[in-house]
Amino acid sequence: MKRLFIKILLSLLLFTNVSVAADPLPSWNDTAPKKAIVAFVEQVTVDGSPDFVPVAERIATFDNDGTLWAEQPIYFQFLFAIDRVKALAPQHPEWNTQEPFASLLKGDMKRALAGGEQAMLEIIMSTHAGMTTQAFEKIVTDWIATAKHPKTGRLFTEMVYQPMLELLAYLRTSGFKTFIVSGGGIEFMRPWTEKVYGIPPEQVIGSSIKTTFELRDDQPELVRLPEINFIDDKAGKPVGIQMHIGRRPIAGFGNSDGDLQMLQWTAAGKGARMMLIIRHTDAKREWAYDRQSSIGHLDMALDEAQDKGWTVVDMKQDWKIIYPFQRQ
Amino acid sequence: MKRLFIKILLSLLLFTNVSVAADPLPSWNDTAPKKAIVAFVEQVTVDGSPDFVPVAERIATFDNDGTLWAEQPIYFQFLFAIDRVKALAPQHPEWNTQEPFASLLKGDMKRALAGGEQAMLEIIMSTHAGMTTQAFEKIVTDWIATAKHPKTGRLFTEMVYQPMLELLAYLRTSGFKTFIVSGGGIEFMRPWTEKVYGIPPEQVIGSSIKTTFELRDDQPELVRLPEINFIDDKAGKPVGIQMHIGRRPIAGFGNSDGDLQMLQWTAAGKGARMMLIIRHTDAKREWAYDRQSSIGHLDMALDEAQDKGWTVVDMKQDWKIIYPFQRQ
Repeated sequence: MKRLFIKILLSLLLFTNVSVAADPLPSWNDTAPKKAIVAFVEQVTVDGSPDFVPVAERIATFDNDGTLWAEQPIYFQFLFAIDRVKALAPQHPEWNTQEPFASLLKGDMKRALAGGEQAMLEIIMSTHAGMTTQAFEKIVTDWIATAKHPKTGRLFTEMVYQPMLELLAYLRTSGFKTFIVSGGGIEFMRPWTEKVYGIPPEQVIGSSIKTTFELRDDQPELVRLPEINFIDDKAGKPVGIQMHIGRRPIAGFGNSDGDLQMLQWTAAGKGARMMLIIRHTDAKREWAYDRQSSIGHLDMALDEAQDKGWTVVDMKQDWKIIYPFQRQ
Repeated sequence: MKRLFIKILLSLLLFTNVSVAADPLPSWNDTAPKKAIVAFVEQVTVDGSPDFVPVAERIATFDNDGTLWAEQPIYFQFLFAIDRVKALAPQHPEWNTQEPFASLLKGDMKRALAGGEQAMLEIIMSTHAGMTTQAFEKIVTDWIATAKHPKTGRLFTEMVYQPMLELLAYLRTSGFKTFIVSGGGIEFMRPWTEKVYGIPPEQVIGSSIKTTFELRDDQPELVRLPEINFIDDKAGKPVGIQMHIGRRPIAGFGNSDGDLQMLQWTAAGKGARMMLIIRHTDAKREWAYDRQSSIGHLDMALDEAQDKGWTVVDMKQDWKIIYPFQRQ
């Protein structure tokens, strides 16, 4: 009977969170951002705290490019589009003379993008539309499992930030629902976010093209159309949050001016809030860029973070390691 | 020590689901639909079953009007719009002569709606747009707490279907995530679905108007614009499901032709599926209508349900009670 009693006591312990004592953020240095995160989580989760937030309202939104994974030398989804142009080129002989495809196929990226936004849009639409959602999911799944980053030679899903993986897990353990709110394509992220970040497809918000429902030989299909549906960037981010979540986040995480309005929207709610910006300061272990960069441009949001006392993470100072493969 | 032991045993019991043995669907008669529901849930949840579905993929989508709550004599959201026209009339003297408002204010609904879809759209836009999302949430919250149904004199949230509340709870206890996929306005439903159905705002999909992010005196606001964003009806339902969930449901519940494509999309996935249509057959306890009705029009979907062997609920035969207030 005594052994049974001990067994029951042990199983009771397993229902309680025995990891509370362990460091939930081992890849973060004990600098100000880590302290601010832990203080915020305690503030909103400790029952009886004046800032206590019920579980249902613990919504945290994360930008993806430059916040959860790297984004240099160019957004990874654009590298996907380039690979798709190459793969589809045999079916498009006209691309040999037609811009932006001709320059892109010759490897002259600068000339390919000389057409600006219009060129970019043509590349995206020719590679992201015209197939069913199921077919596109398979294309992304195959690419993400095999394509390598041009500089590190790593899979793109290896270039996620270990400290942010720990932060996502810590928030979820603390009763938060974690969402991605990215300018990237919603269907480009969904095939892998659950495995890589623990974020299921229904918690991914992103930019999208229109789709249409069709019966093909009595078989229902959703077909992707070459037409913009929604751009989930800048002022689009609070709109996307309202559309998909319908509740204001109490914590927002970003790294660029594209995240400013999401952070403003988060900040404007009542009660305890966490607004955090990741600053890419580590030219050696990752990349260093902010105000002058077109990718991950961080300027106005950095000023506002400093004005308003939002948390700014200095990757070089605040993170022990960058990527999961650097764990010892 | 012995009493402590018993206490611990008791608390352990509380962690297990002691209600498994109890009937999860007490308001359903023991007819075919209830048997089909229970068989389906066991099929996808019993570990080792060839049709076992992991928890993350247990997605169930429910239409709202006519499926979770009543929809006669006209969709409740339209009654909301009429009440709003009356409330706003003092600020709109021009409505006294301008259709469809003039007839509507005189109580001549038939003439008010003679303008068809355009008249309907004007009534919706004049009452649903022009304010912030927060202001609209408050308007809906106040209305739903006080407005009464013209026939029953009940609050609209009392006119939800008790058997469906039990079904929602049964599915959630069985690891399902339950979503609303309604032609109704997404922001008209969200203020009350969590309390009434246990469905949080992020699991509500519906029709929407566009919103825009603005800084008003440095205060971020989302403003509702008089412009259609998305119609979540008929072929729009699978599109809405893909946009918000990104995963195909394994169970779909509807009551009209507006749900047909959602059920087709659900049916076309691999493995065990449940497609269910509620047929309004109870003129005494609720309403009886189907092929001839403009509200909740059920014609093609009924034929397809019969052709394909989908489950059809006959409210009169299959439900012991309709509304929660009829519980004894």
